[in-house]
This record gives sequence, structure tokens and C-alpha cells, in this order.
Amino acid sequence: MANQFWDGDVAELLRVHDDFDLTAVDPAATPGTRANKKAGQAELADAAQELRELQERLYAQSRAGAPERVLVVLQAMDAAGKGGIVNHVFAQLEPHGLQLTAFKSPSEEERSHDFLWRIEPRVPGPGVIGLFDRSHYEDVLIQRVRAFAPPEEIERRYDAITDFERRITEDGVRIVKIMLHVSPEEQAARLADRLATPSKHWKYNPGDVDERELWPEYMSAFQLAIERTHTANAPWHVVPANAKWYARVAVQRIVITELQRIDPQWPAAEFDVAAEQARLAATAELRWP
Amino acid sequence: MANQFWDGDVAELLRVHDDFDLTAVDPAATPGTRANKKAGQAELADAAQELRELQERLYAQSRAGAPERVLVVLQAMDAAGKGGIVNHVFAQLEPHGLQLTAFKSPSEEERSHDFLWRIEPRVPGPGVIGLFDRSHYEDVLIQRVRAFAPPEEIERRYDAITDFERRITEDGVRIVKIMLHVSPEEQAARLADRLATPSKHWKYNPGDVDERELWPEYMSAFQLAIERTHTANAPWHVVPANAKWYARVAVQRIVITELQRIDPQWPAAEFDVAAEQARLAATAELRWP
Repeated sequence: MANQFWDGDVAELLRVHDDFDLTAVDPAATPGTRANKKAGQAELADAAQELRELQERLYAQSRAGAPERVLVVLQAMDAAGKGGIVNHVFAQLEPHGLQLTAFKSPSEEERSHDFLWRIEPRVPGPGVIGLFDRSHYEDVLIQRVRAFAPPEEIERRYDAITDFERRITEDGVRIVKIMLHVSPEEQAARLADRLATPSKHWKYNPGDVDERELWPEYMSAFQLAIERTHTANAPWHVVPANAKWYARVAVQRIVITELQRIDPQWPAAEFDVAAEQARLAATAELRWP
Repeated sequence: MANQFWDGDVAELLRVHDDFDLTAVDPAATPGTRANKKAGQAELADAAQELRELQERLYAQSRAGAPERVLVVLQAMDAAGKGGIVNHVFAQLEPHGLQLTAFKSPSEEERSHDFLWRIEPRVPGPGVIGLFDRSHYEDVLIQRVRAFAPPEEIERRYDAITDFERRITEDGVRIVKIMLHVSPEEQAARLADRLATPSKHWKYNPGDVDERELWPEYMSAFQLAIERTHTANAPWHVVPANAKWYARVAVQRIVITELQRIDPQWPAAEFDVAAEQARLAATAELRWP
């Protein structure tokens, strides 16, 4: 099916390339499409069926032993739209095949272990699409900016992450890493809206402004994390996110593209179809009560 | 908002009452509405917004300490439509506030513990809507029919279940138990469809016909389980499920009704709104890069 919405392969367009420079990414751009908000919202709804069928095939083939599963890692500044991506893109998936993990500040027990200790058990199993809403990248982002760990420990973590991601990739996990990229002006507008709207107060945290004040330090930490952990098997994508509608269709299309690469197939029956049809037919007279 | 679709309170209509008799429930009926399939599908889509707003309020108020959460227990014969309920009703919820658990045949470790051992950790936390796709009721349904446990053990379990359900109710869990009720003729048609459709073969299990052959025994076990465990705080609802569209809107409305009873409220801000607006305004000049 030709897609009228996208001019090109948006997953490829937004994928990080050599000599990546975050300062060159415009958070207000909409690469890969000339469409507007209304057309974007229509595309988001229209592509849901495509996404669900691919997901169902992925799940179905895993029942017959196929190892593939997808892990989407989502990182962003506060109010960049992670929640909207969850509620408008990942909510389109069948719940049985979706495993969502929101990583909060580590607990005391979690802090007593290596930073990957709490991550490993949340890697999705075969056939499942996993989403990390924040992730092990917090351990090289806020932990770097806030100096929660010494510099040599942060350095060690970049290599630990690429080792970890390579290992699970070899086990059948397809990793898709996404940074939602907003401008500080857009973030201010969104935080102001939360403060102005009583039904959104619960989403606001005074700490959001503390982190906002360290914007340049966070952007440096993102640049470094992306440089050090962008690999062929676990690539980063930087998605301009000032336009919510764009970020949503772009992430949806990146996930669809990864599923198309897997090209999951309906598994063959592991039973004798004709024999089962005969067994079922033999119960045709069953009535109750 | 007046609802044009329902003639009455469907949650009350489908709720089990004194002298409940499963043989008197017509699986092809559509209690509470005179609408047809097309109108039912429209109602399912229309009510999604109502369901999501109630869920968001439930989640929001829990962030401020409210203890309420909902646990929906879904039981049914094979091919009765549990999967469709998950994918068409619970898929409407925001993923962060939904905790779905599909209970399979117990593992060796699970069998070495009391039957509630694997259930307790899956009780949803405050603000969350939990769904049990199969549940501890398997331990008094298939286990009774197949005599996997001796009769005195099955007897003990009814009381253990009501004790367990009362305990978690006192902790803020609102329990809604639902049996999807299909006729054996309808089940045969659905299993035949799965066998006739290669993309549905993965959903078929030869064991489904083995269980089907014990239909009257299963219905007796459902009747007994409902009689013994239907309580004011953990009521059963029997939902006619021959018409998939009806079962879906009925379950959706039962969940909405329970959320309306909770009547969750947006929590008050736990910070000084004006002070935060001033802090945010002080960062208004922030630009990057």
C-alpha cells in the first residue's frame, strides 16, 4: 500500500547518523512529511490497523517459537510528550502483546545493585513489544548532570549499556531508541499550561523546573549518550517533538518500520486441522441446558 | 449526559441476584438495550472518552494518596470472547493505568504453593485498573471438573476466595467479577472458524474440544462457584456473549459504572501554584542551543 502521508522513510530520516549533532536538530521541524496537524491525526488513526496486524503476527509467530520481540526505549525532557506517545501510539497495540515499564527514581534496593539490575527483568519476552518510559539512560543523563555518580562510573556505564544491548539483541530483541526533542520555549508553554489547569496539577512536579534550569547540561548529556551508545543494532532516533501530532505519527511509523523489517509470519498449525475439524463436528449436537 | 443506548442500569441487570440460576440466562439475549450491532459498535467507540476520563481521575487521585483501584476478574469457556474484551474494551484504557494478567496453567513452582500465592502479587495498586484474564477461579472450575484437586480441597477454596476478596476489598480494591456466557452452538461456530482460517490457527488448541465435551460439568462448576463466592463487595455479573458487540458494550458499561461509584476527583495541588508560576516565568528567557 502506497503511503500518501510520508514523503520518504521517516525511520531512516530520524535515525542518528555519523557526526550526529543535536544542536542541528530543529525541534519544530516535521521531517518526511508536508502534512499538517489534521492530516497527521488522520494518519495516526489510519495506521493503527497496520500496526496491530503486524503486532498480532509477531505475537502469533512467537507461540511457535520465533524469538523476535521489540524494545522501544523512550527518553525526553519533562513535558516533551512521552505520556502522549504512550496514550496515543502504544495504546493502539493489543494489551496482551505490550509490556510497558515506567522507570522512576531508583529505590534504595535498586540503588544497592548495578544500574542494569532493575532493567534486565523488564526486557520483553518473545512476541512482545516492550516500552521503556525512561530507562537505563537515566543513569547516564540525570546521573551525569546531577553528579549522582562519579565521572569514571558514568564512563563505565556507556560501555556496560552497549554490552547489555548487544547481548539482548543476540537473543532476538530488536532495540529502537527514541529521544523526543522539544525546545525550551515549548517546554515552558506546556509546563505553564499544566500550572494553569487544575485537572493537570497532578502531572506537575516542582522538580521539573529544577531540571529545566540545567537545559544545556542535559543536552550535552544527551549528545554524549547518543554518541557513545548508538550502534547498528541499537540505533537512536531523534524525533522533533514541538508538534505533538508529528512526534506521534513519527514514532508510530518507526515502530511499524521495525516490525516490517522483522516481517513476522502466521505460524503453521501444530495439529492436524482435518482431524480437529472432525473432532469438533462430533460434538455438534451438544446443547445446554 | 443521558445515555440513549441503554434502557436501564445494565450493571445492575447483569449482576447476580438471590436464587441465581445459570440455566435461566440466555446467552443470545441483549438485556438493557434494544439496539443492534451497528449501534453497539458506535456506543463502544463513543463511551471510550467517558471511560478514559474516569480512569485518568482514578489514577490522578491515587497520586495524592487515594486507595481505590479496580480489579476485573474475567472467566469464560474457550472462544467466549475474552480476547475481544481485552482488545476492544480494556485497550481503550491508558496503558499506564492498566495492569493485565493472563493466568495460564500453573507452573511447577506455582503448584507447590497455595493456589492464591500467584494471585496476590498481581492485585493492582492504587489508581490502577487490573484485569485478570482467567484467575483464581480456574482453581474451582477446571480443577473441579477435571478433579485436579480432591473435593474437600475445592470446598476449602470457596471460603479461601471469599476471605481473600474481602481482605483486598478492605484495602481499597473494588472487585468486579464477570462470566462471559456463550452457548455451546456459538462456541462450535467460533472454533470451526478458527480451524477454517489459517491466520487463526495459532489461537486454536486441541484441548479446547476436550473441555467442550465437558460442557455440563463446567456449567455446574460455574453455578457453584458463583453461588459460593458472590458477595456484596465482590459481585458476579453474567454477561450474555453470543453477540460479541453486546458483551463488549456491556462489560465497558459495567466498568464505567464501577468507576462512577468511586467518583474519583482531581487531587488538589501539593505545591504553591503561584510560586511555581513565578519560578517558571524566571526561566522564560532560556534558549538552546
